[in-house]
Amino acid sequence: MSTQTLKPYVIGLDLGGTNSVFGIVDSRGEIKATTAIKTQGYETVEAYVDACVDALQPVIEEVGGIEQIKAMGIGAPNGNYYNGTIEFAPNLPWAHDGVVPLAKMFSERLSNIPVGLTNDANAAAVGEMIYGVARGMKNFIVLTLGTGVGSGIVINGQVVYGCDGFAGELGHVIMRRENGRSCGCGRNGCLEAYCSATGVARTARELLAKTEEPSLLRELDPEKITSLDVSIAAGKGDKLAKEIYEFTGNMLGEACADFAAFSSPEAFIFFGGMTKAGDLIMDPIKRSYKEHALKIFRDKPQFLISGLDGSSAAVLGASAIGWEL
Amino acid sequence: MSTQTLKPYVIGLDLGGTNSVFGIVDSRGEIKATTAIKTQGYETVEAYVDACVDALQPVIEEVGGIEQIKAMGIGAPNGNYYNGTIEFAPNLPWAHDGVVPLAKMFSERLSNIPVGLTNDANAAAVGEMIYGVARGMKNFIVLTLGTGVGSGIVINGQVVYGCDGFAGELGHVIMRRENGRSCGCGRNGCLEAYCSATGVARTARELLAKTEEPSLLRELDPEKITSLDVSIAAGKGDKLAKEIYEFTGNMLGEACADFAAFSSPEAFIFFGGMTKAGDLIMDPIKRSYKEHALKIFRDKPQFLISGLDGSSAAVLGASAIGWEL
Repeated sequence: MSTQTLKPYVIGLDLGGTNSVFGIVDSRGEIKATTAIKTQGYETVEAYVDACVDALQPVIEEVGGIEQIKAMGIGAPNGNYYNGTIEFAPNLPWAHDGVVPLAKMFSERLSNIPVGLTNDANAAAVGEMIYGVARGMKNFIVLTLGTGVGSGIVINGQVVYGCDGFAGELGHVIMRRENGRSCGCGRNGCLEAYCSATGVARTARELLAKTEEPSLLRELDPEKITSLDVSIAAGKGDKLAKEIYEFTGNMLGEACADFAAFSSPEAFIFFGGMTKAGDLIMDPIKRSYKEHALKIFRDKPQFLISGLDGSSAAVLGASAIGWEL
Repeated sequence: MSTQTLKPYVIGLDLGGTNSVFGIVDSRGEIKATTAIKTQGYETVEAYVDACVDALQPVIEEVGGIEQIKAMGIGAPNGNYYNGTIEFAPNLPWAHDGVVPLAKMFSERLSNIPVGLTNDANAAAVGEMIYGVARGMKNFIVLTLGTGVGSGIVINGQVVYGCDGFAGELGHVIMRRENGRSCGCGRNGCLEAYCSATGVARTARELLAKTEEPSLLRELDPEKITSLDVSIAAGKGDKLAKEIYEFTGNMLGEACADFAAFSSPEAFIFFGGMTKAGDLIMDPIKRSYKEHALKIFRDKPQFLISGLDGSSAAVLGASAIGWEL
């Protein structure tokens, strides 16, 4: 135990659909070394882990060898914390129709250091608690606004994994029970169908079709509009683009009002590209929350933007899982 | 510590708007002695506590004196577990516009035994964990279907109190965002406005007015219909009464689908008078849950009726808080 606590670093792996990014991180969240491989192109998980370990070797040597590494944390789609597996992940050829014991495989290849694994939103929550804006907090909710909407819920200082390891799917609470938008999960009206990056692009297309309002977005092919286009237009003062953020923030505030009734968190923390819009998105969220929350929760939570540095946020989150092991 | 663990009993107080019911309970949930006073009629909290202690003295003697009592648990409206207070409880004249340190006051009058206090739904959750159907479970949600809809959420074996002691207000998540029924909380569309006993009576009036369907309920003054009338009619095979349960169960199933996305519990446990309807209410809940839940949660939770005995369930729940102290 005493030798373990002297080990100054953890490895973080942000296992995304496109890239697998590694960082070697110290206890203050400073990334000491980094490397990456493409996620795709491996038919078997063994081949994928081989390529990862090959890429990791030199960066591990850079920080003084595996003896300096306390543990490894992995943030991965459909990651199950309880047993360190990836389960039925549609974007990973070697895990799309089965259960892959990825944590165990990495541990065996890395001198049996402890390896923990969870989904990226839970990893972000642990990252906020260890390095970010949730330091010292025991009850908070991280909402990741990316291609989808994910969530990491912390209660009494612990990430909520539920009975099966898959709790915290707040992107899939139903926000519109009538005429709700179709969602990738096969149901209709999910928060994710409105407030993800793709949801924001859909809102843009809907508003462009519904109104005659002039907008910079009208210069683009509607089918190709992205949330980044909306962000750029809003930054230039485009009124319609701001309405899109109003709509999105309003729904996030409504959702947070329901989440407060569940766990009464001291903060909601927003993570992901969409938060770059700053007050354009945060102001409507806060306003809507106050309008919709039950009176006793109305003035309690803070609304914060992630304290993890943008480009390396996901790696930091993953690495934080290592400190918790 | 060792002398404490030898004390075989706890006191439970179910502090309701009408009655205050006490039970002295052993670790198996057997009620050894019981007493009660009216809750109303006391202008100050001191007078109320005096009357409680007077009523308690003989039953405490009956089980061998205060030395036999490990602790006391109180289930009370607007009870705050963190500081043992009742806060702004509209039905209690001595607590409707302030914060009353009720746990501390009882402790001081009862030889300084530990006294814990929370709302009745959280008390029910602890009761299920200690004496009821949730023994051995670490993740479950109790929904109390009474005058209102309350909830007690357990995650990792702990009741969720949130940052302020008031988490778990699932009766006030919004189920209908458009044209929702008005709720006592001042908002519209809350689960409680539909699935409480009063909500069920409202559904009865709505369906009676909307359809021409013959029903035993048509023999009653619509304004005076209660959920008990609906239950009696349904028991006699009344088709409209069954439709009311279908509607109510359907919404509870929808709500549970969202709750599963939050904490992925292994069970939803239903508590309160309405559960006497048995399969009439439980079948639509289960059917609706399966229809609305995200695929990964669809077949996981059990749907159970409280294991605490009806008439003394609230006292047992309150007493269970005592064992947790």
